[in-house]
Amino acid sequence: MTPPTTPALTVVGTVALDDVTTPAGTAEAVLGGSATYFSLAASLFARVGLVGVVGRDFPGRFRDLLGGRDIDLTCLETAPGATFRWAGRYDGAMNAATTLRTDLNVLATFSPSLAHGHRHAPYVFLANTAPAIQLSVLSQLAPAAPGARLVVADTMNLWIDTARDGLLEVLRRVDGLLVNDEEARSLAGHRNLISAGRRLLSYGPRFVLVKKGEHGAFLFARDRQFALPAYPLEEVRDPTGAGDSFAGGLMGALAASGRSATPDVARAMLYGAVTASFAVSTFSVDALARVTRSEVEARADELRRFVTL
Amino acid sequence: MTPPTTPALTVVGTVALDDVTTPAGTAEAVLGGSATYFSLAASLFARVGLVGVVGRDFPGRFRDLLGGRDIDLTCLETAPGATFRWAGRYDGAMNAATTLRTDLNVLATFSPSLAHGHRHAPYVFLANTAPAIQLSVLSQLAPAAPGARLVVADTMNLWIDTARDGLLEVLRRVDGLLVNDEEARSLAGHRNLISAGRRLLSYGPRFVLVKKGEHGAFLFARDRQFALPAYPLEEVRDPTGAGDSFAGGLMGALAASGRSATPDVARAMLYGAVTASFAVSTFSVDALARVTRSEVEARADELRRFVTL
Repeated sequence: MTPPTTPALTVVGTVALDDVTTPAGTAEAVLGGSATYFSLAASLFARVGLVGVVGRDFPGRFRDLLGGRDIDLTCLETAPGATFRWAGRYDGAMNAATTLRTDLNVLATFSPSLAHGHRHAPYVFLANTAPAIQLSVLSQLAPAAPGARLVVADTMNLWIDTARDGLLEVLRRVDGLLVNDEEARSLAGHRNLISAGRRLLSYGPRFVLVKKGEHGAFLFARDRQFALPAYPLEEVRDPTGAGDSFAGGLMGALAASGRSATPDVARAMLYGAVTASFAVSTFSVDALARVTRSEVEARADELRRFVTL
Repeated sequence: MTPPTTPALTVVGTVALDDVTTPAGTAEAVLGGSATYFSLAASLFARVGLVGVVGRDFPGRFRDLLGGRDIDLTCLETAPGATFRWAGRYDGAMNAATTLRTDLNVLATFSPSLAHGHRHAPYVFLANTAPAIQLSVLSQLAPAAPGARLVVADTMNLWIDTARDGLLEVLRRVDGLLVNDEEARSLAGHRNLISAGRRLLSYGPRFVLVKKGEHGAFLFARDRQFALPAYPLEEVRDPTGAGDSFAGGLMGALAASGRSATPDVARAMLYGAVTASFAVSTFSVDALARVTRSEVEARADELRRFVTL
């Protein structure tokens, strides 16, 4: 039986303070982190259990912002030390961040511990962290009947290069993989993105979602391929968190629907594209924290028309 | 009244001998040129009148190849001198060609002259040439009632940089513009592609089609925006002619349908994407010259499924 405090969706990832410079400006010590963007996007659709860690310096207003949404903060631990801090810069077409500084701080010794309710969530997202941490989360999940839980993992080139075995073990144990185009090429060892996507399926997950930034996203599954463009935005101010917001909209929409078959994943990508479009329209989580469900639905309708022949 | 020898579709552009090197190999003195790729793609759907020039060295087997398809070669002039020759190389991701040599040869003094039938064609494509040549073609077209003819123009950065006034005059006189993403940004003076597309509409055409290579194409019209991904190919051997084959499939499908409203253009993009996918799968026009209408329809069905939510 599902305990009453079970969130629909558990996410394990980072909560950060970011210093970001883009052609549109600069923001310092603003709220960031994969679990933050994910949770704000996903909580537009379903109750999220956020598993992560912050330092004692984490501003109360940021905690209030998260707690004021449909986000369970029981598993957001506060540890002695400073909050994880990331500094990055985007230039020109803003296709990729240059990392200027990464201070792990409290993240260096973080070992996620899931509350009882969080272990039973029917939807789980493993944001980009060390495969060892992702495996630890997988081992804490309560047993579920086949098809009763959807687990999706993200990763990054650092782990592809330095912890490939652990990552391949993660891939054997999750339902979906969410990566960007460069990560897909690198992990699969194929320059052609279509070949790369198909190859990644052979590593275990039943679907692979490849994010291509302004060029949209591809879904690869055994029975289906699907392509969705990005929502057509005239102004991008800060691309930070685009991928995690995409993941949040996707998983949130799936959790709200209670479904997870390939066509459901394809439809949920529409919401991922929309939440990502809000995320990148301002610095930090400003737009994501403000946007309403009905604004999301309006943009989803617009994107649906944008792709309908 | 339409003369009996009127092709459905007139194209004015280049017929070339190409020397191409890609990561997949090298081809020398192979059949190329914008009007060539366009005509082979378009003739899968409708009768094409090709307006262009070749030199006395133009191999008979290439003329036979074109003449063996539904292509009217009345206006393919043979001039004293050598055929236009282009040499280029594609590296790595094959996103852009490096031009190694351009010998205009007979093209240097080419002044297109349209036969009576070609002037009456209800669909006209002005492939990338000097705006002065495009304007000369426009002035030769027989008068047509509003909406009775669809004229679409291509261009390139050379003319955007060196013949902007002539190009803007062309844009005031055509229905559609077909450019790649870099050309769209450069011509509009906007880095954001969505803003660029909208700005280009203000220059005159009622639709602007922006080709993004492996990332597909955007359609901008006053009442509609539409995005289509590229056909998902696992192997690209030679990107030469992708854009012209896209244009050929698009215009050919429109000519076959007899329609040209925005939703018709959106649907015809599917055929553009498919003919382009065949073009890039081999060197030169090998695949385009071989492919059948039913193979095109099968791939169009596949692409339709690829984008259907």
